[in-house]
Order: sequence, then structure tokens, then C-alpha cells
Amino acid sequence: MSTPLKFLALSGTTSVTENCYIYEYGDEMVMIDCGVGFPEADMYGVDLVIPDFTYVRKNAHKLKAVVVTHGHEDHLGAIPFLLKEFKVPVYGAPLTIGFINDKLMDYKMKGQDLRVFNPDHDVLTIGSFTITPFRVSHSVPDACGLCIDTKEGKMFHVPDYKFDWTPVDGKPFDLAKVAMLASSGVLAMASDALGSTSPGHTQSEKAIEAIINKIVADSKGLIYFSTISSNISRMQQAITAATASGRKVCFVGRSIIRKTEIAKKLGLMKFSSNQVANMNEALKLPKDKVVYIIGGAYGQPGSALYRVAMGEHDQLSVSSADTVVFSADPAPPGAKQNVDFLVDRLLEADVDVHYYDMQEDLHVSGHGCQEDIKFLMGVVRPKYVIPIGGTIRHMRAYSAIAIDMGKKPNEVLELVAGESVEFEKGQSKKGEKFPVKEVLVDGLDVGDVGQVVLRDRQILATDGIAIIVITFDTAIKQVVGDPEIISRGFVFEKKRKNLLEDSSRALGKYLSKKRIINPAVAKRESVDFLEKHFYEQTGRRPMVLPVVVEE
Amino acid sequence: MSTPLKFLALSGTTSVTENCYIYEYGDEMVMIDCGVGFPEADMYGVDLVIPDFTYVRKNAHKLKAVVVTHGHEDHLGAIPFLLKEFKVPVYGAPLTIGFINDKLMDYKMKGQDLRVFNPDHDVLTIGSFTITPFRVSHSVPDACGLCIDTKEGKMFHVPDYKFDWTPVDGKPFDLAKVAMLASSGVLAMASDALGSTSPGHTQSEKAIEAIINKIVADSKGLIYFSTISSNISRMQQAITAATASGRKVCFVGRSIIRKTEIAKKLGLMKFSSNQVANMNEALKLPKDKVVYIIGGAYGQPGSALYRVAMGEHDQLSVSSADTVVFSADPAPPGAKQNVDFLVDRLLEADVDVHYYDMQEDLHVSGHGCQEDIKFLMGVVRPKYVIPIGGTIRHMRAYSAIAIDMGKKPNEVLELVAGESVEFEKGQSKKGEKFPVKEVLVDGLDVGDVGQVVLRDRQILATDGIAIIVITFDTAIKQVVGDPEIISRGFVFEKKRKNLLEDSSRALGKYLSKKRIINPAVAKRESVDFLEKHFYEQTGRRPMVLPVVVEE
Repeated sequence: MSTPLKFLALSGTTSVTENCYIYEYGDEMVMIDCGVGFPEADMYGVDLVIPDFTYVRKNAHKLKAVVVTHGHEDHLGAIPFLLKEFKVPVYGAPLTIGFINDKLMDYKMKGQDLRVFNPDHDVLTIGSFTITPFRVSHSVPDACGLCIDTKEGKMFHVPDYKFDWTPVDGKPFDLAKVAMLASSGVLAMASDALGSTSPGHTQSEKAIEAIINKIVADSKGLIYFSTISSNISRMQQAITAATASGRKVCFVGRSIIRKTEIAKKLGLMKFSSNQVANMNEALKLPKDKVVYIIGGAYGQPGSALYRVAMGEHDQLSVSSADTVVFSADPAPPGAKQNVDFLVDRLLEADVDVHYYDMQEDLHVSGHGCQEDIKFLMGVVRPKYVIPIGGTIRHMRAYSAIAIDMGKKPNEVLELVAGESVEFEKGQSKKGEKFPVKEVLVDGLDVGDVGQVVLRDRQILATDGIAIIVITFDTAIKQVVGDPEIISRGFVFEKKRKNLLEDSSRALGKYLSKKRIINPAVAKRESVDFLEKHFYEQTGRRPMVLPVVVEE
Repeated sequence: MSTPLKFLALSGTTSVTENCYIYEYGDEMVMIDCGVGFPEADMYGVDLVIPDFTYVRKNAHKLKAVVVTHGHEDHLGAIPFLLKEFKVPVYGAPLTIGFINDKLMDYKMKGQDLRVFNPDHDVLTIGSFTITPFRVSHSVPDACGLCIDTKEGKMFHVPDYKFDWTPVDGKPFDLAKVAMLASSGVLAMASDALGSTSPGHTQSEKAIEAIINKIVADSKGLIYFSTISSNISRMQQAITAATASGRKVCFVGRSIIRKTEIAKKLGLMKFSSNQVANMNEALKLPKDKVVYIIGGAYGQPGSALYRVAMGEHDQLSVSSADTVVFSADPAPPGAKQNVDFLVDRLLEADVDVHYYDMQEDLHVSGHGCQEDIKFLMGVVRPKYVIPIGGTIRHMRAYSAIAIDMGKKPNEVLELVAGESVEFEKGQSKKGEKFPVKEVLVDGLDVGDVGQVVLRDRQILATDGIAIIVITFDTAIKQVVGDPEIISRGFVFEKKRKNLLEDSSRALGKYLSKKRIINPAVAKRESVDFLEKHFYEQTGRRPMVLPVVVEE
């Protein structure tokens, strides 16, 4: 009996973020990426969403390694949660491992087995898998695609990428290596579908240099330049522009400072000590001699840029001759609304604001568009293609491109999370389904916030809570006095004191009329009565929680 | 002493929605529009935001009339709240008054003084104000601008408009009338700023006819066509397309049905009985013989289209050969996310979905772009201009256009809510500021949900609540036994039962060690202890609410 090669989507095929895939052959599994997702608006209080490791747990002995393709949260953010459960080596390019190491320090996790590879030369042998990384262009340096040689054939795994022939770090997509690796025939390629609804080619990072330089050169006051902390090239561009205009840069925000330090150490960011200033030095410089490279490009509440814009920062402030640049695409849930909010506050303060909505080239995407997707498929020429890293709509658009290029419908493998395909003798077939659910992280705890807790939070968020304290005399078997009602988030008690007092009296009267002789019944009747009563009086449906005190 | 003409922005100049302005001269005030705003994401449980009528309340005797320019919620939605407090006539064009009347029925308000004007002929005399309405093009029929003659000069008030020379209803912007009215000189114009960041001219509604016709003609299954219920012309276009393809239309959703009835009665929508079908008839037709015109174009949870897409509708369902068209711009807060969610569900069901993200002309804006703004300013030639109906960024972009056209900075009057300008002898100056706050409507109550309640809801939404029931023996002056802890929205109790039990024991031990002899101190100490304890154990900060039962 032969052994099929399995490809499993733990998550990420239809959620853009939370990338996590497994290649399995016999008793060996390699995980590619282990990223987090971001909570939707109705996931109240949830910090992160992580992949469901149930399948890994059941096959723990098979897991040989995790290979991380690049240093973005949606590809590496769940690594600490994985390593808490499974002892397994993590492979990545230098910057990627630098970021993972930094993250593990956040979680106070030491002594993990992190292994750096050089994407230009190294080949990884993991069990029967031979994995050859190659450079791709993306919005973080050291991003890689993977060529995975297996007993059943050659697989390509190419998450987030674009083609940038003039990258800031001088290291373009190694398409020649890809062509060479692919020349012996490719069984299947899983690749980035996110740009599949956008026509044309994605622009080079170089395209935005002119506008950054112009904004910096034209500004007469302070400049706040904000981008995502992993976007090392963008910060390099800002440094170059600052130096050209006789300004020093000062890094502001914990993540920006740590990520630039890591990149600098690895030689992926280049600046000399006289190009930068620390905060104390920067504060002494004239306004037209400094550029603050600052965190908060998505307008996150509490970020450094947020605090500056809201006048809440300890040391920095912004005023009318100053300039603020948001050099990022506000794609994550809620980001656009947060950026809009900050932009409006800054405009009120008469600041010169440059942001996504203006007809300027302040950001280019890190993902290839339709023509780029065709290029990669055209060079790799896989028998099967698998769209990853987009939503359902990107999956469908990616499939349309593949079919347009001559693929048959059965050669495009659309998988949602919890689905797998098996390859055997050059043919593919649907594999087993395995159960996955959303694993929510709230605070320190993983998985204890589920539908029950979220539903409660939703009710609490919408209409608040009313607590009824009922005193029940067990001797005479009846409710004593009017129940006390306390509320939070329901009505403003100072203004609607009467509502609660009247409701308490009405409930007391109702309960005594009912002659209830059982505390459980008293609870149920109280809840029913007050839910109806509150809705009639206010049009709201607060959570009503009874507490019975037995005397 | 002479009397200045005052223009007051109650709200709407920087919030896009919630339009409400006052023109005041001596003892006379006319309100123009009285719309609602939509709650931001952090306004938990709030249904609507309405203008702050404090200024009106202080000057109630002055208010002579409200003139409503068109039938959109953000221009008329707060009328019921106004009329509950103030007895005042409401003027509007036929459809506008039709929609207002319908809304008042929702609020069970009868016998209000609603007055219909014909925008082609009528002139309103309200105190010393002479108001001449004129037709503008917008995404609802019967939309008007106003020329307001005052003792201090001629004012133009032109909210939401575009120029559409081929409108579906055959009634274009009456620019000839505007030119004539303006020829004697215009003191100031308040006009729509929302398109001021978009270059070019806004397209005619006609531009989307070809694509609607093509989608309807090409479809082999059921068609669900969704737009905003006030967009009468868009529905007319869908009816025309349906008839051309041999399909009948069926209206689905309360708001769609009511608004089309009103428009039909007024002759603003034209179709014969054999072009439409009621639900029972439609259900008997073959799939390729019906178009459902259905509510839920913003993907609102609970809307008819939402229920169809989620498989929750009593009578309608959707399957693989069917087509769904979202013909609306998902601009309001949260709309894009809701539409995306439905689109993905529909794509999973293999439905042919047409929506904002595709390169199709499925919607044109109702607001003029930069070149349209120039056209209107060029024809009206006001001395002063006032941007309204946008955000701060649109205000600034509108001002830039005016200055580009030769206005001096002091001739562009930027007002935020609570600000006013005064005109006297052809000159303007800043007027008094009057206090305005956000008035929130939640359920039946207006204004009792404020910062305290919202802050509580935010804490409850994020980390839930833990209630401590402490029994205090007043005879021996001490806490008796371990306090009981009940939680909601904090942790999943079945999974973390131990957490609550352990916390209860720890708190009991702590309290008995402290030898507390006062119930108030017991409350405070319990809250302090548990807040710290829960954060250490879970990383969460639930609201901790103590209840002391004295025995």
C-alpha cells in the first residue's frame, strides 16, 4: 500500500490572516507558518484568534518542524501557543527568527529551538521532506517561499509575495531560482490569493520614494512618519528622506524600537549614529531637524501616534505647522475607522496630514495583483494550484485566473479550514475533514472564551445588567421584603433612580401575590417579571441576574 | 441697533450625518433639516444619535418652522424627537413629507402639522424669511435646495446634491432657476462638502443601467436586487430591467414595501400591476421569471437579505444558479464589514454575487465631486461659502476648492457643531458658541445613556462582570463564611469552575484575616482583592460588583 502526501489547511485559506498549513507524509508532518487572526467586531474582549491545534494534538508525535515564511503576525503570532504545547524546532530566515525570538521574550519563554536558515543557500532536510527556501518580495525583509520536495512530488508553498525588481533592500524575488527548482516539474503550488481581485501588477516599494522625499523636504515643522513596525524598508526610506533634508530620525513606540534594533543588528537596516537621535536629543532639536518614526499607523488606541494626536503623550505633541504621514493600508478590521478618527483630530489641530484617502502614493501593497499571480503560475507551472491567504472571494478570483490560464476545474483545489487534499501518483483527491473551531485568546487564557461567554458579553454590551437580590426566609418559606435591584450599563441610575425603585416595589408586590415557597421559583419568576417590565419601561433588554439570599 | 442674521450649526457640519441647521433673525428661527446620526462602534447598545436641541429649547418661542430638504434619515430621522417637544410646522416636497409621515406613524404620533410644497412653483413665507425651494439631483426623488431671502441678504442652502442631466425620474437639477435666483447677488451658500476629496464629476444614475440590464438578462436563476429603500430611482431601474427580461418584481422587506408604496402613490415610481407580483405569486413563478427587490443592501443583521443569505428566511432561499446584487455604497459605520460577511456566505453557496468590490458600475454616488462643487459655486457666486455634510477632511478640501476659485480665507466659514456665524451689512463675523453634546437614543429613552453607562458597557463588553455576594453579620460585626461569586461574560464557568471557587475561598480567608467590622469596608476590600486576583489569574479585568447582605 502506498502512502499519500497530505496537505491540510488548519486555517488561513479563507481568513486572510491566521495562516497555518501542514504537509504530512506517513509519520512526518511539517507545519508551514503559525499565525494569529484578529478578532471580529462581535468578539467582545478577545485579543487574538489562533489556529485550532486539535489535529496536531492527535498526531503530536508526527510533528517534526515548523517553517515560518516571514515576520508578520499572521504568519508567526501563534508560535508561542504552539511551543507551549509541542516541543518542535522552528525554522526561519534571520529577521523572521529575530522577530519570533522577540515575541517569545514577551511570553517569557526561553530556550526554544529556533533555527536560522539563509534563504539564498540553505536547504532543510526534515524527515523525508527536502525544503528549499527562496527569497520573495513582500512588505517585510527576508520573506521566503518554499520548494518542498516530497516522495510524491515537488510542492511549492508561496504565501504573501509580490515582484519588486527595485526593492529598498536590494534583494529581489529570486525568480531565477524558482524557475530552476520548478524545471523538473511541480505537482502543486499553494500561493497567495489576496491580490486576485485587483487588476495589473503591484508597484515596487520604490514608487513611493518620491512622495516621501517631497513631503519631508516641504515640511517646516515636526514630522511624524508612521508605518507598520515590521515594514523595515519603509522606515529605511523615511531615514533616507530625513537625512537628505538635514533631519535626524527618532524611533518612537515599543514595537518600532525593538523591530528596528533587530533589523539593524542583522544588517537589514542601515543608518549611522549621526542619522538618528534618541528621545532626549530629539526633543532639543529644532522642529525642522527631526522626523519621528512612530508606531500607530492603524490608529490603534493607546499607540504612540494616538497619544500624540490626542494630546496624551508624555513628551511629544503636535501643532499647526507639523506633518503627520500614515504610510500603511488600513486593512485590518477597525483600522480604517481608527485612522479616520485620528486624521480628523489632527486636521482639527491644523496639522498637515497625509493618509490613505489622498491621491498620493503613500503605500504600495505587499501582495501581487492578478498579473503577478499569472507570472508566478506561468513560471512554476504546477499541475495543481491551491489559493491561500485570502477570503472566499479571493479564492474564487484566483481560481478564475488559473482556469483562464488553462487549468481544469479539478486542478484548482479550494480548501476551507479543516479540509485537506491527498496526492498520490501525481493525482489529487479530497482528503479527510478534521474538526476546527475558532480558538480565542483573551488575556492569559486560551480557549475558555467561547460562544457562551461571547453571547453574554454581547448582551452586556448592548443593554447592561440588572442584579436582583432576593431575600428568602427558609423558616416561613417566603420572600421577605422588596428585592434590591442594582444595575450597570443599563440606565443612568442618578437620572432613572425611580425606575429601579419602582421596579423593586412592583416585583416585591408581584412575588408576594404569587405566594412563592421555593427560592428557585422566586428566581425564575423575578427574571421573567423584570425582563418584561424593563422592556416595557425602557425598550431595552438588560441581562437580569437573580441572587437569592436564604435566611 | 441693527439685527444680525445668524446661521447656527446644531450638528452635521463635520459628521456627514445628523444634519441640523438654524437660520435666525431677531425673534424668528427656521430649522433646516433634522436628521439622525449613526452610533460609532464604541457606543454600545445605542440605536441613534440625535441633535442636541438645548439651543432650540432656550429659544423655543422663536422656532417658526422646520424645512426638510429630502427624504434621507440623516436629514429627517430626528423629526419625531423634535415634534415631541416643539409644536412646529414641517415643510417638505411630496415624497419627503410622505416619508416623514410614515416615520411619525412608527412613533405613533398623529396630527402633526406637515405641509407639502411643490419645489417647481411654491415659495414659502415664514416670518421675515422667504424660502424658494428648487430641485436638485440626489439618490432620492424630490430632493431640494433652498434659496432663503432674509433682511440681511440672500442665502443658499444646498445639502446633498449632484448634477444628473439624465435622471431616472426625468427631473434634473433646476440650475436655470438657481441662476435666476442667484442673479441678484448671494450673501452666503452652505453646501454639500462630501464629494470634495473626489476628483471629477459624479456620474448620472443612467450610467449603471447597462450593467443592471446585463446582469438581469444573463441570470438563469432567482435574482435578489438590493438597494437602500429610499433609492426609488434605483428600484425603478431594476423594475425596467426585470420587465425587459420577462421577469416580475416582488418587493421584500418592510421598509422597501412601505417606501415604494408611498412613491407609487405620488407618481414617483411607475409600474403596472402585471410588472409586479406579491410574495405568494412570486413563490409560484419559475426562478427565471422573478426579481426580488429586497432590503438589506448594507448587509444589516436581521434584514430580509441577511435572513435569505443565512438560510433564516421563512419563505425565500438562495442557491447556486441564483444572483444577488448589492447596489449601494457601504459607507455607514460597519456596513462594509456586514456586506463582506454576507458576500462570503453567498459565495460559499456558489451564488453569483455582484457587490461594491467588483469592477462594475453597480452604484453611483448621490454627492457631487470636486468639479460639481465648482459648478455650483460658479453659478451661485456667493460672497461667503459654508461647507456642510462632510467630515473635517471634507470641510478642509471644500475650503481649498473655494480658495482655489478666488475666495479669501475669511470668506470660507468653517463651523463645527455648536458654532455660529452672524451676517450684518454684507459682512460676516463669528457668532456665539452654544453648548452641544451627543444625545444618544437607546430603546425608548433619549439622553439617559451617557458616558457613565457607556463606560460600564465597554467594561462589561470587554471582560464581563463578577458579582460578589458577601454576608455580613451585624450582631457580631463580621463577614460570615466565604463570599459567593457569580460571573457573566468573564470566564466559561463550566471550564473554569475552580477559578471562581478558589477565588471565593481566597477572598474569604483574606477578609477574615483583615477582621473587617464594617460592611462598606468589606465591599471595598473585596473589590480591590478580586480585581487584583482575577487579573493575575486570567489577565482580564472584569467589573467586580459587591453585594452585601446584612444578617
